[in-house]
Amino acid sequence: MPEYAPPLQELIDAFGRLPGIGPKSAQRIAFHLLAAGEVEAQHLADAIRQASERMSFCQRCFNLAEGPECPICANPARDATVLCVVEEPRDVVAIERTREFKGRYHVLGGAIDHLKGIGPERLRIAELVRRIGDEGIREVILATNPNIEGEMTALFLSKLLDLPDLTVTKLSSGLPVGGDLEYADEMTLGRALEGRRAVERSA
Amino acid sequence: MPEYAPPLQELIDAFGRLPGIGPKSAQRIAFHLLAAGEVEAQHLADAIRQASERMSFCQRCFNLAEGPECPICANPARDATVLCVVEEPRDVVAIERTREFKGRYHVLGGAIDHLKGIGPERLRIAELVRRIGDEGIREVILATNPNIEGEMTALFLSKLLDLPDLTVTKLSSGLPVGGDLEYADEMTLGRALEGRRAVERSA
Repeated sequence: MPEYAPPLQELIDAFGRLPGIGPKSAQRIAFHLLAAGEVEAQHLADAIRQASERMSFCQRCFNLAEGPECPICANPARDATVLCVVEEPRDVVAIERTREFKGRYHVLGGAIDHLKGIGPERLRIAELVRRIGDEGIREVILATNPNIEGEMTALFLSKLLDLPDLTVTKLSSGLPVGGDLEYADEMTLGRALEGRRAVERSA
Repeated sequence: MPEYAPPLQELIDAFGRLPGIGPKSAQRIAFHLLAAGEVEAQHLADAIRQASERMSFCQRCFNLAEGPECPICANPARDATVLCVVEEPRDVVAIERTREFKGRYHVLGGAIDHLKGIGPERLRIAELVRRIGDEGIREVILATNPNIEGEMTALFLSKLLDLPDLTVTKLSSGLPVGGDLEYADEMTLGRALEGRRAVERSA
């Protein structure tokens, strides 16, 4: 006799495949949904179905979009000559929250990861190069994650994009705002030292 | 301009309503599902829909069941005269894992919680009383959670079920196996002292 009826086991397995949900959480969520009743369960199923059917990728920047173009690319007030290159659509959201960036994005769809067999050809790098030519880009800001794969991707792109009339910049590394120096790891602290800046003095 | 397109926001909200999933996890799961592609998203939606349509409650014990009767009630090898009373279907799974219990269950569907306005009439207590009469139950084991609501429910049931020829027992409280005495809270340690037993010595 299996521990759970097949439809319940399927549901637990499906939740368990989502990121950050372990077997125990998956079980808890499945029981919750079935106890909550059919309306709530169907609501979640509909939300998934709707989002998966209606959301796709922006044809220009590969951000998530409801139509063929994302709201950022469609916005004429954004500076079309500056591109911020990120790994995933969720990184676009993070940068948008700062309200500091007025240009457009280019979403690579991941980072170079040789261990997982993800080479540059698996990312939207050819599309990036094409955009730089077609759209008259002046500056590319590399905003990949500050981990090994992200750094490798940034290094690869910085070499590839060594083009005349194109500035390539990278997000600064250093101490997180509000963090304690004491608790910073040595890599971060090393980067903060390396990237130190002259303090501006008034008068 | 809203931060997310409406179908994406709906999806994030729907995940955020599940137990143990905060706003950050909900966002992460939503982005993961959309990045994973339509097949994976539809698979999850189908699993939810299937489980919610095919699973219901056992007509006898109110455990989750694929048909009108759960596998435990349908199993003639189980002792039909002993009932283990639990709050939720997930508690049945927990007790079944011990392989110690050979009787049947009765799932109350919650616990008495006056703060949330859940009185005895909201639980399947009338059904429990009916079963005790109809099915010739000899023993009822109260296995509600060892928290305030569970204890209140057990106390209520122990008074209600003061019937001739019926034994009412309760799961023992005490130190969790593998735990450190040093880290036990005073309630647990108090219960462990209160419930101390004579050590059996083999002569």
